[in-house]
Amino acid sequence: MVVQRLDAPTPEEVVEAAKAAVRDGAVLTVQARCEVEYEGRTSGYLGEGDRLLVAKPDGTFLVHQPTGHKPVNWMPGGGTVEARESDGDAVLLARRSNPSERVEARILEAYGVTRFEAEDGATYEESGTEAEMHEYIQNNPEELEAGLRIVEHERETKYGFVDFYAVDEDGTPVVVEVKRIQATLNHFDQLKRYVELYSESNDEVRGMLVAPSASERVRRALRDNDMEFVELAEFGLDAKGATEAKLTDF
Amino acid sequence: MVVQRLDAPTPEEVVEAAKAAVRDGAVLTVQARCEVEYEGRTSGYLGEGDRLLVAKPDGTFLVHQPTGHKPVNWMPGGGTVEARESDGDAVLLARRSNPSERVEARILEAYGVTRFEAEDGATYEESGTEAEMHEYIQNNPEELEAGLRIVEHERETKYGFVDFYAVDEDGTPVVVEVKRIQATLNHFDQLKRYVELYSESNDEVRGMLVAPSASERVRRALRDNDMEFVELAEFGLDAKGATEAKLTDF
Repeated sequence: MVVQRLDAPTPEEVVEAAKAAVRDGAVLTVQARCEVEYEGRTSGYLGEGDRLLVAKPDGTFLVHQPTGHKPVNWMPGGGTVEARESDGDAVLLARRSNPSERVEARILEAYGVTRFEAEDGATYEESGTEAEMHEYIQNNPEELEAGLRIVEHERETKYGFVDFYAVDEDGTPVVVEVKRIQATLNHFDQLKRYVELYSESNDEVRGMLVAPSASERVRRALRDNDMEFVELAEFGLDAKGATEAKLTDF
Repeated sequence: MVVQRLDAPTPEEVVEAAKAAVRDGAVLTVQARCEVEYEGRTSGYLGEGDRLLVAKPDGTFLVHQPTGHKPVNWMPGGGTVEARESDGDAVLLARRSNPSERVEARILEAYGVTRFEAEDGATYEESGTEAEMHEYIQNNPEELEAGLRIVEHERETKYGFVDFYAVDEDGTPVVVEVKRIQATLNHFDQLKRYVELYSESNDEVRGMLVAPSASERVRRALRDNDMEFVELAEFGLDAKGATEAKLTDF
């Protein structure tokens, strides 16, 4: 939850908020006109401009310009972030000792400060592609339902491709949407659109969402709309985390 | 400047703020409990947790957990960021087409939203290390001032290392602080501390800040405190930007 939010804070207020964030383990966000210095393996200087500054409780410090996905300057977790007043400005200093480097942002004008006590126990979980799951279903439709028969794989509609168009043992059409990750409400929405489309020509059509798992909220949304969830637990998430995959992406 | 700042916004307010940010080219920051999906080269899912979401006008989208310097999910600039309401939640969708990938954040509870019209014309400029500048000064002290003589390189004090301890042609001690980048108020502060330290034993001591350049504000601060600035323009900034250097740092 956000515990503090200030508009156009004074330098003193920025320093106080930053110290409180460090003390309480909160994520600090500052919108500010600032100049930035880097000293470490090289020296660097970024002249005045508007930036988003982010300080995390682990010592991470990010300086984001208005464009680009990479921070223009940053410090990884493990070091410290300190705040002080200097010559009438608030200054945020992030540093670590091994290797010795420092990023220092002098805030010439702060537009906003937010202190955010964020709680997040989740880990990003990455799985393979949907293609391998499609192949499995194509070859084993009975895993979804006894007697189910696949009529078409990836049938095009005006809303996009339906993963599988099938018929059940009574000959009733079944629209099957397959997800490789835990089913979400977005997936429910997508399936619902397809089912509504097919209902125009056959109001018996069934909707089936297939995924390794689903929250109770998604299961309820499906039930409330007369659609079904099929759990294919064998496609549960791999141990491989995306954090590692991402390391090479930058 | 910050043009909008909302506490505990409703899903509708989040969507409106996000649409306005996209329309006006503002940086959007959202503190929220959310779940995140990725679809592209792989599939990925991040369950509920508190995160900082950042959407930039170039299509950059970042999902930051409370720790770590890398976003857990992100999309580079070049694509689009859209906002919509879905099943009572605000949803932010960032996507691009080549390669085809999407990051979708379903905001289950928004704690805060900020729309930031950021203006930043500055480019990060990186230079070599101070070591090569030190070597140059050691060998060419007359470039700083006629008759200047270096007494000691990197003299230790209780405040850290003074870059050069020198004497001028009248035998007056001179404390020299050398910076490889444009001189800032932090450098002025540092030099001032050293000069005050040496004043305790000799109140004639002079303070000299050496850098490739300095803003008028820094020059004035030095003058007002009876210290001097020496411009060594030959150590002006290289063309090499840090943005490129950073590409391999992640």
